[in-house]
Amino acid sequence: MGAHLHSDLNDTICALATPAGTGAIGVIRVSGSRAIEIVNILFKGKDLAAQASHTIHFGKITDGSRIIDEVLASLFVAPKSYTGEHTVELSCHGSTYIQQQILQLLVQHDCRLAKPGEFTLRAFLNKKLDLSQAEAVADLIASDSAESHKMAMQQMRGGFGAQINQMRTQLVNFASLIELELDFSEEDVEFAAREELLVLVSQIAALIQNLLDSFNYGNAIKNGIPTVIAGKPNAGKSTLLNALINEERAIVSDIAGTTRDTIEEAFVIDGITFRLIDTAGIRQHASDAIEEIGIERAFEKLQKASIIMYVFDATLTTAEQLTEELKLFSSYPAIVIPVANKTDALTHTSAFNQETVSISAKNNIGMELLKQRLVVAVRKDEIKNDIIITNLRHYEALKHTADTLQQVLNGIDMRISGELLALDIRKALFHLAEITGEVTTDDLLANIFSKFCIGK
Amino acid sequence: MGAHLHSDLNDTICALATPAGTGAIGVIRVSGSRAIEIVNILFKGKDLAAQASHTIHFGKITDGSRIIDEVLASLFVAPKSYTGEHTVELSCHGSTYIQQQILQLLVQHDCRLAKPGEFTLRAFLNKKLDLSQAEAVADLIASDSAESHKMAMQQMRGGFGAQINQMRTQLVNFASLIELELDFSEEDVEFAAREELLVLVSQIAALIQNLLDSFNYGNAIKNGIPTVIAGKPNAGKSTLLNALINEERAIVSDIAGTTRDTIEEAFVIDGITFRLIDTAGIRQHASDAIEEIGIERAFEKLQKASIIMYVFDATLTTAEQLTEELKLFSSYPAIVIPVANKTDALTHTSAFNQETVSISAKNNIGMELLKQRLVVAVRKDEIKNDIIITNLRHYEALKHTADTLQQVLNGIDMRISGELLALDIRKALFHLAEITGEVTTDDLLANIFSKFCIGK
Repeated sequence: MGAHLHSDLNDTICALATPAGTGAIGVIRVSGSRAIEIVNILFKGKDLAAQASHTIHFGKITDGSRIIDEVLASLFVAPKSYTGEHTVELSCHGSTYIQQQILQLLVQHDCRLAKPGEFTLRAFLNKKLDLSQAEAVADLIASDSAESHKMAMQQMRGGFGAQINQMRTQLVNFASLIELELDFSEEDVEFAAREELLVLVSQIAALIQNLLDSFNYGNAIKNGIPTVIAGKPNAGKSTLLNALINEERAIVSDIAGTTRDTIEEAFVIDGITFRLIDTAGIRQHASDAIEEIGIERAFEKLQKASIIMYVFDATLTTAEQLTEELKLFSSYPAIVIPVANKTDALTHTSAFNQETVSISAKNNIGMELLKQRLVVAVRKDEIKNDIIITNLRHYEALKHTADTLQQVLNGIDMRISGELLALDIRKALFHLAEITGEVTTDDLLANIFSKFCIGK
Repeated sequence: MGAHLHSDLNDTICALATPAGTGAIGVIRVSGSRAIEIVNILFKGKDLAAQASHTIHFGKITDGSRIIDEVLASLFVAPKSYTGEHTVELSCHGSTYIQQQILQLLVQHDCRLAKPGEFTLRAFLNKKLDLSQAEAVADLIASDSAESHKMAMQQMRGGFGAQINQMRTQLVNFASLIELELDFSEEDVEFAAREELLVLVSQIAALIQNLLDSFNYGNAIKNGIPTVIAGKPNAGKSTLLNALINEERAIVSDIAGTTRDTIEEAFVIDGITFRLIDTAGIRQHASDAIEEIGIERAFEKLQKASIIMYVFDATLTTAEQLTEELKLFSSYPAIVIPVANKTDALTHTSAFNQETVSISAKNNIGMELLKQRLVVAVRKDEIKNDIIITNLRHYEALKHTADTLQQVLNGIDMRISGELLALDIRKALFHLAEITGEVTTDDLLANIFSKFCIGK
């Protein structure tokens, strides 16, 4: 993309919009000023150019006398389409061969194969959605749990952009007042009350801090909560892992096609994805150099964990021993949940610390309680702001805004000139505008949209 | 399915119609008498029940206050739909999570998840297409070359069914005349001229024989032409294989998502799929028992081959040697193409037999000629009938018809009674009707449609 980003926009583009592979149907999307005209050449049926927007027409896609497929053509007349351009969606049989043939025909008739995310890029450039909404589209498609879905949906529906725009409007007003002062600078008038500015900027800075604080939570939700199961060998780690995963897998696989290969040990409770991390190597004392490396890695994982489940054999552990063993984890930022396993084999009543959850992983006892504790551990971290940041780019732009606003606050404190204040406020506005895409560069757009799938 | 096939038809069914996995969009199909009503409950936007058929509506799928997705709902009002029932297609974001959520919501609101092929089964039962057309839908989706696509398309468009029905009409007329005779049997009247019947049945039997003859070709086209590359070690077999495959692969992979894992060594020339079969083990004399097994297997492959390319090193082989070596293949039904390799290294002009194609696989010389020869070898086998049989079920029904018609011909010859003739003609009609599905059983339907993908 790069420098050609905008010059490409005159092309009419096409792509397969459904996942590749064999299925009942496939959808090919064509968008651009000539979309209807080009499809009309290949489409034998009604004259698509004479049809109303948002109507569906049965017909044949032909290459001369050769019939490629019987299709349904869905018509979207500009600007009433996803991209804001003329768009035709061809619903064809779900054969890779047929889809290929239709795309080749379109290309022969002056369409170009779309780049990843190019339909959404056009929607953004045609102001059908702002940049944070466009990014949310990709998040929505990638969402795989109720919580990550909720955050992406909220962002796509514009909640985040609206909050950013509200802050911008308030800052713009003040910037204008200050710039007005500059015009009258010889008269030494102060149009913008410094105290009011102080209050406003402080409020906005606090809001932004909330958003920044939500990032860790949001990011964890989006990528799954890193959850380490630690414990001595034979404490029942693997049995617990299986008990947690298998149950949830069964639910997930109720409907075909939900395979999630990337994170093998992920499972969902109450819409929150937990990412189980293996620390088989953990022992208190290494016997040799190789085991030491293993322990080092385990410690790295512990360092990054949000939750540590420390599983121990209840039949072999006293309350005093547990207290001692838990000290190993005191230096980590994670929430530690002690899990007393094999409690079904206990002959006496145990008295471990209050935090301890008693289970028998083998017999599936106490699993509901443990799951509740996992959810509580996450929700404890939840920020009460409606909007949650999940995108590193947004986080960085907000961080820059916060830093600049701090400079504004310092400036007011030091009673620096309106000229310098205005400069800093404009800088803060610039960073906020980056989020919604009011200011942007071709490189940034290319970078964002290249991560989309083709056809979106 | 089985006995419940028809009783299930009152259900409103739903399924993902696009391939599983993450993509730009996914389409969920809902069909049945309550399809519009049920989707309307979940759909926030216009009242779908008040909209015209073949229109598209933007809205949200919600579960109470929770927004699952922003979707486009395409409306098809019975009988103007694929199934002949009310149908709604929901085009949602291509997230597995979202698709799962929407399907779960539909199931909660009294939809049932569709069985494989159930939409097409309903289309058949509602007489939107005959059984051979329904079968062609699955063939069309599985088609992966121009020829297999052409045959499936023709069958789906009803060419085959029309030909069958024409034969049936002619036979029905005669059967009626003969049965009329039976009513007047005491009067010994002959309404149906035996000579006319003889001509008609002979014509139909010839047509059916044409169709039967086309099966081998059609089946080979559908599944790929089994093509064995044979030759001594170092003759250049692998180089030839790579030269043939790589070139064509490049073309196939112009468009993403066309990976075809099942037959690794398949390639397409002029729309015909050739399935290359490895016979590395072939030598004239086995040195031990294990090699003997290898040779046995190679011979099995040669037995099943339609084409054998016999590759030999032109620099090491005389015309006499070649003639001798080719004798090895004389007992196989395949067409043998002698391929003289390494001809670029020849210092003299060679004089192999006329059939021999001279190439240099390493330097890509002569490959076009070889490909033309492969295509000619296949087309030679092509039946000049417009309709080509590819389906074993059709083949068997036609075979039964042909056998029964032969009995009719014998019966006429032996001047058997009209009663017995009518019985045989009815039997032939029954077998023809099996093809288009005029007569069928639940088990047969279950068997046919269980091979479809879900959502079709």
